[in-house]
Amino acid sequence: MSACRALRGNALLRAAAVARPIASLESRRTFTATPRAMSSFYKGWEPEGPSVKTQIPGPKAQAAIADLDTVFDTRSLNMLTDYSKSVGNYIADPDGNVLLDVYAQIASIPLGYNNPTLRAAARSNEMINGIINRPALGNFPPAEWAEVLKSGILKVAPKGLNQVFTAMAGSDANETAYKAAFMWRRQRERGGASVEFTEEEMNSAMNNQSPGASQNLSILSFKTGFHGRLFGSLSTTRSKPIHKLDIPAFDWPQATFPQLKYPLDQHVEENAAIERAALEEVEKLITTYHIPPCAVVVEPIQSEGGDNHATPAFFRGLREITRKHGVLLIVDEVQTGVGATGRFWAHDHWDLPHPPDMVTFSKKAQTAGYYFGNPELRPNKPYRQFNTWMGDPARALLFRAIIDEIEKLDLVKHTARVGDYLFGKLEALAEKYPGQFNNLRGKGQGTFIAFDNPRRDEFLVKAKTLGVNIGGSGQSAVRLRPMLIFEEKHADLLVDVLEKIVKSW
Amino acid sequence: MSACRALRGNALLRAAAVARPIASLESRRTFTATPRAMSSFYKGWEPEGPSVKTQIPGPKAQAAIADLDTVFDTRSLNMLTDYSKSVGNYIADPDGNVLLDVYAQIASIPLGYNNPTLRAAARSNEMINGIINRPALGNFPPAEWAEVLKSGILKVAPKGLNQVFTAMAGSDANETAYKAAFMWRRQRERGGASVEFTEEEMNSAMNNQSPGASQNLSILSFKTGFHGRLFGSLSTTRSKPIHKLDIPAFDWPQATFPQLKYPLDQHVEENAAIERAALEEVEKLITTYHIPPCAVVVEPIQSEGGDNHATPAFFRGLREITRKHGVLLIVDEVQTGVGATGRFWAHDHWDLPHPPDMVTFSKKAQTAGYYFGNPELRPNKPYRQFNTWMGDPARALLFRAIIDEIEKLDLVKHTARVGDYLFGKLEALAEKYPGQFNNLRGKGQGTFIAFDNPRRDEFLVKAKTLGVNIGGSGQSAVRLRPMLIFEEKHADLLVDVLEKIVKSW
Repeated sequence: MSACRALRGNALLRAAAVARPIASLESRRTFTATPRAMSSFYKGWEPEGPSVKTQIPGPKAQAAIADLDTVFDTRSLNMLTDYSKSVGNYIADPDGNVLLDVYAQIASIPLGYNNPTLRAAARSNEMINGIINRPALGNFPPAEWAEVLKSGILKVAPKGLNQVFTAMAGSDANETAYKAAFMWRRQRERGGASVEFTEEEMNSAMNNQSPGASQNLSILSFKTGFHGRLFGSLSTTRSKPIHKLDIPAFDWPQATFPQLKYPLDQHVEENAAIERAALEEVEKLITTYHIPPCAVVVEPIQSEGGDNHATPAFFRGLREITRKHGVLLIVDEVQTGVGATGRFWAHDHWDLPHPPDMVTFSKKAQTAGYYFGNPELRPNKPYRQFNTWMGDPARALLFRAIIDEIEKLDLVKHTARVGDYLFGKLEALAEKYPGQFNNLRGKGQGTFIAFDNPRRDEFLVKAKTLGVNIGGSGQSAVRLRPMLIFEEKHADLLVDVLEKIVKSW
Repeated sequence: MSACRALRGNALLRAAAVARPIASLESRRTFTATPRAMSSFYKGWEPEGPSVKTQIPGPKAQAAIADLDTVFDTRSLNMLTDYSKSVGNYIADPDGNVLLDVYAQIASIPLGYNNPTLRAAARSNEMINGIINRPALGNFPPAEWAEVLKSGILKVAPKGLNQVFTAMAGSDANETAYKAAFMWRRQRERGGASVEFTEEEMNSAMNNQSPGASQNLSILSFKTGFHGRLFGSLSTTRSKPIHKLDIPAFDWPQATFPQLKYPLDQHVEENAAIERAALEEVEKLITTYHIPPCAVVVEPIQSEGGDNHATPAFFRGLREITRKHGVLLIVDEVQTGVGATGRFWAHDHWDLPHPPDMVTFSKKAQTAGYYFGNPELRPNKPYRQFNTWMGDPARALLFRAIIDEIEKLDLVKHTARVGDYLFGKLEALAEKYPGQFNNLRGKGQGTFIAFDNPRRDEFLVKAKTLGVNIGGSGQSAVRLRPMLIFEEKHADLLVDVLEKIVKSW
């Protein structure tokens, strides 16, 4: 789409917004100039506000959904989207509805729809080459692959981790990290990288049996955690039965994730005890579970499972326990990574004395994989960790462009600031409307904020009618996942709609 | 890259080829005009032949590989590639070596490097939109998604299958198909789609235990089969120990894949008996294995596992047995699909009275997923088969462009014809050099051809020095996986190099 067409699109959106003012737009006007408001990152880019013209889905969307459903399951469809008309923080649909989007494709759009910088990257010769000449990266990497990694994926590698195995999405990023953990542990048990596999191991592996297939090792995960939905990752996912029913799973252990009480500053002692108990349970499972874990996988903030937070002290304790018992620590930053918590990686908040062994990423990175540092995490022989594509260089190039833009616009600090601003406003709302914004959490975690509402599902539906697209997590959480270009003015608009929702009840 | 720059690239390649004629080029001249030769699909596009200037890797590649190895495992690296200089059937490296490529990124490049039609597709507004606005397809599909599917992925859907679940690559395509199979089977056992899950099922599923997690059901696969390397797919992969060692696996059954004797026309009775025995083993496993299979997964031609073929009669028998016992048949067309066997899907050769229940695809499709037809294979509730991205619309658009080009150039028929031509030449070679081209297989299967050589690994290395990039499979197979734009003239060049290799010993 040319710049000229993009502008025309914007103009249409604005015209529409002016033509049919709705309640949320009118009241938003009271927020147009706050002391901390700043101008848009890309001038003249976004519409000035949401515009809801029909019920959602409207007539055009309904017809299209019925058509789509004949070939593609649409029962999880949230909103049929017109991406060509979606701009910045605003998502559009075929009926001309335009919503402020704080769900962002399940937390996976970093810089807004139709971002002009990413558009330029998508038009580059490098990108076109990556699209049409898709390599088998493990066998035939592009000559410039080292440079692409170093100036992109690895430029933002977590402290202490300087290597990467690239993957396709969160599930296989986690599963390949698990595979690396199993291989690492068995190598240590065998006595090192130079010890050859036995005949018995090779034969039993082919038959899916021990000792070749490590049926006697596990991955420990946490209750209400989410790590993906393929067979290995799903075995560590403990979010909801609907994710797991009927799918065979490995007999791997789960520990209780701390269930903190809010507000945090009023439950300091109690929460510390909760976290100590959780760590004791982890240690007990590590030392006594009948299939001992070779790794612990944990999200910095359990996202799908309900926006469950723990303190840096808990994670430092987890690092200490895992090191003590020779168990790897895998930090799943699929949803928390790439800036939304006000640090590039959420685990940067923890001030760990020793880095995690592996950190997985996807979503806002638009590509995926796991970082590691310890050279022992490279398997002792080639082709043990391998597949045809091993990721997608086109998507790696996009991540590089995303990283450059995040740096150029200082979006991580920006998100920390806007998050603080938003959190303050939500605290005020919570006080004003008791019982509506429960367990408000994510303070100091950028815009990675959530609260519980007793009528959560209705809450999300109502938000759409008022011009905001919001997601849920767990049983009752409203999860906010704005993009990194979310500004104070968007926060004002959001808070205004949130208030309207609870006032309408 | 502009058309003008592409042409300049070509000119450079040609100049290089002329400047340093090598043995393989000289002898290729004897093949320049065969009765069946046809002109290139894209005029002035490809170099006239390979050009080997240095050892491979040459000095530039060696330096770049050492650099890459500091951040990315390079031990499985076959050839560092300069994709900007690779054209059509020819792959280039940073040292200016240009090889005829009959490996094609492990059988995953359909239409040649830097294909001008795909380049145009990559520059389209639709593609750019798909790159920069990556949707969560299950929640927020693009308004045009039905049309993209119908004019692309579903336009080539196997007979009888009219729906698709989209995925990222072969492994998750297979695993999501397996998940659909488990859910389908358990639903039947429960008594239908309307029967609710019990409390016990929901609780046990969260604990990775039966009855909620179906530990008492399995997927049956075949020895020497390959279906991917994540935890579920790897449990069905039986190719080599190095793929499986140290990774936990499910206790699922494996049946013997027919080990046919060649040439087929001299072993008709014997092979029929081998296939009958294999089918009996499958039926016995279905009826007696302690964890009964809900599905059988099979490759039309076992590819990674050594290019093992079976006859249509075997597959018809497999379909009959699976139907008889209420077991689903999943045909893994990840490597065989999209034209290389001379039919769009390899299972089109079988003339099945009832279609497979699911067919998985990836590689040459440049996107992935599974096809199905039976509406019962949609799980009874939403969010049972779901993940954030559920594929990549940008890659789906590329597949659509690939399909259009295959149709326009009639490349499936073309490949059937070139395959016959190549097979005839290889039969002559096999006769001329006994013991060098053993078990020549793939007759009537397009260019999906292989043979065994007693010094296979050396064979592949030698081929590179003579200007051809070839892959292996299994223990001793040389596997030919040319692109769909492979012509008689390339077959001549290939056969010439194959002869040179065995003559040099």
